[in-house]
Amino acid sequence: MIKTPYLLFLGDAPDALAAKVAQGIKDWRPDNAVGQFRMEGCKADLGLTDMTLAEAKAAGAKTLVIGVANRGGVISKAWKRVLIDALEEGFDLASGLHNLLRDEEDLVAVARSCDRDLHDVRVPEVKYPIANGERRSGKRCLAVGTDCSVGKMYTSLAMDLEAKKRGMKSSFRATGQTGILITGDGVPLDAVVADFMAGSIEWLTPDNDDDHWDMIEGQGSLFHVSYSGVTMALIHGGQPDALILSHEPTRTHMRGLPGYDLPTLEALRDTALPLARIANPDCRVVGISVNTAALGEDEALACLAAIETRMGLPAVDPFRQGAGRLVDALQSL
Amino acid sequence: MIKTPYLLFLGDAPDALAAKVAQGIKDWRPDNAVGQFRMEGCKADLGLTDMTLAEAKAAGAKTLVIGVANRGGVISKAWKRVLIDALEEGFDLASGLHNLLRDEEDLVAVARSCDRDLHDVRVPEVKYPIANGERRSGKRCLAVGTDCSVGKMYTSLAMDLEAKKRGMKSSFRATGQTGILITGDGVPLDAVVADFMAGSIEWLTPDNDDDHWDMIEGQGSLFHVSYSGVTMALIHGGQPDALILSHEPTRTHMRGLPGYDLPTLEALRDTALPLARIANPDCRVVGISVNTAALGEDEALACLAAIETRMGLPAVDPFRQGAGRLVDALQSL
Repeated sequence: MIKTPYLLFLGDAPDALAAKVAQGIKDWRPDNAVGQFRMEGCKADLGLTDMTLAEAKAAGAKTLVIGVANRGGVISKAWKRVLIDALEEGFDLASGLHNLLRDEEDLVAVARSCDRDLHDVRVPEVKYPIANGERRSGKRCLAVGTDCSVGKMYTSLAMDLEAKKRGMKSSFRATGQTGILITGDGVPLDAVVADFMAGSIEWLTPDNDDDHWDMIEGQGSLFHVSYSGVTMALIHGGQPDALILSHEPTRTHMRGLPGYDLPTLEALRDTALPLARIANPDCRVVGISVNTAALGEDEALACLAAIETRMGLPAVDPFRQGAGRLVDALQSL
Repeated sequence: MIKTPYLLFLGDAPDALAAKVAQGIKDWRPDNAVGQFRMEGCKADLGLTDMTLAEAKAAGAKTLVIGVANRGGVISKAWKRVLIDALEEGFDLASGLHNLLRDEEDLVAVARSCDRDLHDVRVPEVKYPIANGERRSGKRCLAVGTDCSVGKMYTSLAMDLEAKKRGMKSSFRATGQTGILITGDGVPLDAVVADFMAGSIEWLTPDNDDDHWDMIEGQGSLFHVSYSGVTMALIHGGQPDALILSHEPTRTHMRGLPGYDLPTLEALRDTALPLARIANPDCRVVGISVNTAALGEDEALACLAAIETRMGLPAVDPFRQGAGRLVDALQSL
């Protein structure tokens, strides 16, 4: 568990996109973001207060989160100086970079001498159990996609926010590095050892109040041959009560797999639902989340209306329209 | 890759069952088994020549394989003496034990000074790629089960043996520790990190002659919520041309999951085949392998006949009847 709130480190981000992890934290958990730390030449700006380490410390920040991608997969000397200063000022560090904080000897040495924690969120820090398949109390919602990267995380975060606004009990359950940094904990599922995948999701979504919803971040796709096993473990470990189908309507082939067509939403429904019912016979498909970012407003609305008619389920783009109708669907279960 | 042939270490096995890994090697790869090494009190006997380390060395053995389960999860002092002697005599060591050879400091030190290899087959030794889903030449057959431990490995080994007898090109592709020790290589799939599962199976079953069959060892079951993700990765990474359905007809619930009924063979077929066709649109279900060990001969034959009629596919118990009709089915594709 990463200590909150954070100071968001934007480093020398060459553009706003490079700081998308920090942007996600600011968008979804603004209370977690005390301020931003920018170095010379930084081209990203979240609109948060620029703070020194000392100012952020005084404002209550506990962890410096690297909210920016590094260039060339190397933690530069300039970054390193800030990270070491932060440890010495009393911050923990958290990172989703491919190269790990724990592999940097100088950071490890300073963290040890200052008694601070280094969190590499790509690496599991928990010994997960093997899944036991026992029914758990509480309710769970999982987004499953026709492909990878179609907006599953966004959908679950938007549903969680909407549910909380309505006074419902809800927790976003992160299963990837960005989600983990946003919320401060979760399971880096793609890095979990095969035998423990489903068990890690049972661990992540334990018994809860009968009226509590876990909004579980989806991963991969049953139709994406590189990652389908990960998706399967989410479906069986998560034992969802509700599935949201997620889709990007303009994609011409599966992400990274030029020879593979996207499945239809019907095929996704008819594949995912029987598999989900193995773990939870009461599971239902309740709605559809469509990422229409590539379409103009009229085209997007027409696309959503056509899908809604065809599938007989609420079809919304949570970015354009909010997740209200998807949460309505959960409430009507 | 483990160097063959082997001297099979039976230690102080309390009974024959404790030495089932060694038995598997002797049954399926007799050419790999130069002899057996038994300690005082050993109650297992494979019927191989008892050899000292020196005798086995003289007979050409390259690796001492621990073919027996250890008691209490500890490598005893008595075992350790033999293992150290073996390293000093010039043997590599191979083990599928939960406690790893590489975690024993004395073994590591001796192996290093004698320039010998320690193979812990539960631990991946290869950096596997992420699956790319590209179609590969050659043919592949995968056994998928209604449950775990229903005879998938046995089925694939028996089909491989039968195919070779017929002069067909065939390779058994091991995906678990026993299979890896039997053949000397493979992928310990349950220990592979999630993102690389399907890629490890692509790596294991590469391009091959058009008339070559990979007989891929199955793992888990799509219907077993603890391990279904592993099965899914096998189906998509293996891109099988042929599926064999494997079943144990007397089981009352999924292994280790008292609340879960077994699926029917029809449900297995209707679930596995569409998923397999995502990676290989030509995939077909060609036969059924039934483990009838719990039935008498008449009952077994009646069970097989009933399944064959019901499913319209050859249904055999390869242990009772050999795998001939399953290989016929591959040849008729």
